[in-house]
Amino acid sequence: MTSDDIAGFFATRDAIDREQYLELDFSFECVGDPREAAAHLCAEQSTAQWKRVGVDEDVRPQFAAKVLEFDARPLPHGFSIPLAHSPQTAGPGAGPGAVHACRATIAHPHGNFGARLPNLLSAICGEGVFFSPGIPLIRLEDVRFPASYLAQFDGPQFGIAGLRAQLQVFNRPIFFGVIKPNIGLPPESFAALGYESWVGGLDIAKDDEMLADMPWCPLAERAALLGAARRRAEAVTGVPKLYLANITDEVDQLVALHDVAVEQGANAVLVNTMPVGLSGVRMLRRHATVPIIAHFPMIAAWSRVPGYGIHSRVMTRLQRLAGCDAIIMPGFGPRMFTPEHEVLENVRACVEPMGTIAPSLPVPGGSDSAATLEAVYRKLGTVDFGFVAGRGIFGHPEGPAAGARNIRDAWSAIGTDVGSAPIH
Amino acid sequence: MTSDDIAGFFATRDAIDREQYLELDFSFECVGDPREAAAHLCAEQSTAQWKRVGVDEDVRPQFAAKVLEFDARPLPHGFSIPLAHSPQTAGPGAGPGAVHACRATIAHPHGNFGARLPNLLSAICGEGVFFSPGIPLIRLEDVRFPASYLAQFDGPQFGIAGLRAQLQVFNRPIFFGVIKPNIGLPPESFAALGYESWVGGLDIAKDDEMLADMPWCPLAERAALLGAARRRAEAVTGVPKLYLANITDEVDQLVALHDVAVEQGANAVLVNTMPVGLSGVRMLRRHATVPIIAHFPMIAAWSRVPGYGIHSRVMTRLQRLAGCDAIIMPGFGPRMFTPEHEVLENVRACVEPMGTIAPSLPVPGGSDSAATLEAVYRKLGTVDFGFVAGRGIFGHPEGPAAGARNIRDAWSAIGTDVGSAPIH
Repeated sequence: MTSDDIAGFFATRDAIDREQYLELDFSFECVGDPREAAAHLCAEQSTAQWKRVGVDEDVRPQFAAKVLEFDARPLPHGFSIPLAHSPQTAGPGAGPGAVHACRATIAHPHGNFGARLPNLLSAICGEGVFFSPGIPLIRLEDVRFPASYLAQFDGPQFGIAGLRAQLQVFNRPIFFGVIKPNIGLPPESFAALGYESWVGGLDIAKDDEMLADMPWCPLAERAALLGAARRRAEAVTGVPKLYLANITDEVDQLVALHDVAVEQGANAVLVNTMPVGLSGVRMLRRHATVPIIAHFPMIAAWSRVPGYGIHSRVMTRLQRLAGCDAIIMPGFGPRMFTPEHEVLENVRACVEPMGTIAPSLPVPGGSDSAATLEAVYRKLGTVDFGFVAGRGIFGHPEGPAAGARNIRDAWSAIGTDVGSAPIH
Repeated sequence: MTSDDIAGFFATRDAIDREQYLELDFSFECVGDPREAAAHLCAEQSTAQWKRVGVDEDVRPQFAAKVLEFDARPLPHGFSIPLAHSPQTAGPGAGPGAVHACRATIAHPHGNFGARLPNLLSAICGEGVFFSPGIPLIRLEDVRFPASYLAQFDGPQFGIAGLRAQLQVFNRPIFFGVIKPNIGLPPESFAALGYESWVGGLDIAKDDEMLADMPWCPLAERAALLGAARRRAEAVTGVPKLYLANITDEVDQLVALHDVAVEQGANAVLVNTMPVGLSGVRMLRRHATVPIIAHFPMIAAWSRVPGYGIHSRVMTRLQRLAGCDAIIMPGFGPRMFTPEHEVLENVRACVEPMGTIAPSLPVPGGSDSAATLEAVYRKLGTVDFGFVAGRGIFGHPEGPAAGARNIRDAWSAIGTDVGSAPIH
């Protein structure tokens, strides 16, 4: 690129109509001139070739992504992550082969692709981002949407307020339990465990994200038995409960499985968002009559290594945009390998202002139990979260009712601190 | 886990019914006892809690994933990739806190979830894989399916043989061109470029993966003009051509957009597989009357860093399973940051035996042009590939016809070596 070419991919915020652009925060490491690398990054994700041969035109003013903020500093010893296939570099310093660590905020025109999740994903984490000349290592750190873009999405139908109203649970966390053994039990045994956990004090008994509509535990039968067990538990306890049925399946089955599950007695549905595809979830959202709860398979594959991939909060924002009422995400436990700041960033991404899009209930989880509840609550500093346990409830030596009761007792011991909320 | 618990997650191939299992190859780095880490990896991806409290049962014989092959060696200096949040380790050696680099082949019972792509993804690259105790770094290296599992999928409808028959092109690569400027042109200008490239010798003129159904270039109008241009080019050259229309959009639009595109004159459709979701592609496959060509956005986000994530060939296999007739993938160019062996592994994943599933045409690409054709061909050692150029054709100083002709000429110079195939 010439220096004029490079300058064509830089802009200031006051020079653009910000409603027409997403803002993308990237960190990257590049070899060669960092400003040229940033310009290529814009070109590759938008107008890689911005004019026809022999035609005096330039599509960049309307269609090019543009760098709004940029900084670069030389790395003393090449790339921070060893890449078997990284380009040769000339070692430390600022010479032509030097490696720089950069931060860039890029304005990407959403008029290039519209309010479509697959096309949005292709733009913000597609070929243009991960295959830009001189940038072998890059991480999409965050995304911000203008109000006019957000207004084209429905977002959560129920959200935190809707879930609370449905459960009649206010001023405390919402307690989930993953029925275990998660795989291999027939519906009768599965329903018996769900019943005990509700009576013990759970708000939501849920299928594991791995439990599908299988002959050894068909969804229709499971939902019927769990639905009946739920109603009995509601009668015994006097409070509403949710049975959260996993309907993760091929996208052309989602609507039918939602209908079967709800008709039989489920009153919330679980989807593995990334395996199904965010677009499938958005489709389900348009049809759903019950809350949609998202589970997190696959996201770690692109979010764990610092300096590369896609920050998990981007996926949290997109799940909220797609219409997930609650978002189960890796929490604080050591098995989850997630830094505390990242958990908190994802929790905030569920609840912070997002145009017309309602907040989603954040559910940071993983190997939690009564013993971890207080620490989780202290770290979050709010009661607006879901708390999910599995083996902590269903592996309890005195059974699931005792396991669930333990969690409620643990909350009671904390609860006085939050203004003596009524513990249902 | 006790040593008995650990042993319950190990098996030999002769002790299992191999038709009931996928085989998964993992590499991972773990802290603590490597055999216990491998057992946890099996438990987390299948039966995390394998019995109810107070019930004498064990669901593992039918439902547990099991280690078939395993080896571990101590790493001298902790994890090979720096993780900001990796567990504390005790340094070199084989003590309780030592880090080991491991390879494991795991048999995963597909009867846990069935022949459903979202559930398959949840099983092989979900929470169980990336959140297993003591294993912060893991990579799914490969997956193998038994014949009875593959038989439940349709796979490619046309595949290599069907594409060749449609184009009447045999004994040479199939030549694709990405019409550029990829974004910002109205349909008329876009169609004029496509026409020139076909007349110059391209087999397939295609939309960029970023080009959607937008008001400034609506799919219906684009397909109509490109379809007409294609038919004129076919009349002029006397050979069949393909217009490959990008129908990447929300999943509930895919079938309708396929129909619009085909009705108007497209005779192949492009989908960004991962952004749309593999399941959406499988749904489209059941409906499609023209070849489905896959593009690769997002895959690099989880496949580039050695030692972590998911090897790209896993995604190639799944795209083939979902029914993609051709698979565009990162090729050999330096912009693609893909080691040569990985490109070749992906090419092989398209064509090697896979039960009843037909081969997909591999299309390794990225910054290719007439100048790189011979090198690509020599590396692949076969004519069964697609060769895709963009700026190499549409940025050619004498225009797209000259750019396309250049590629055909480059092939003619090579072509005598492969048995004097007729060059159309």
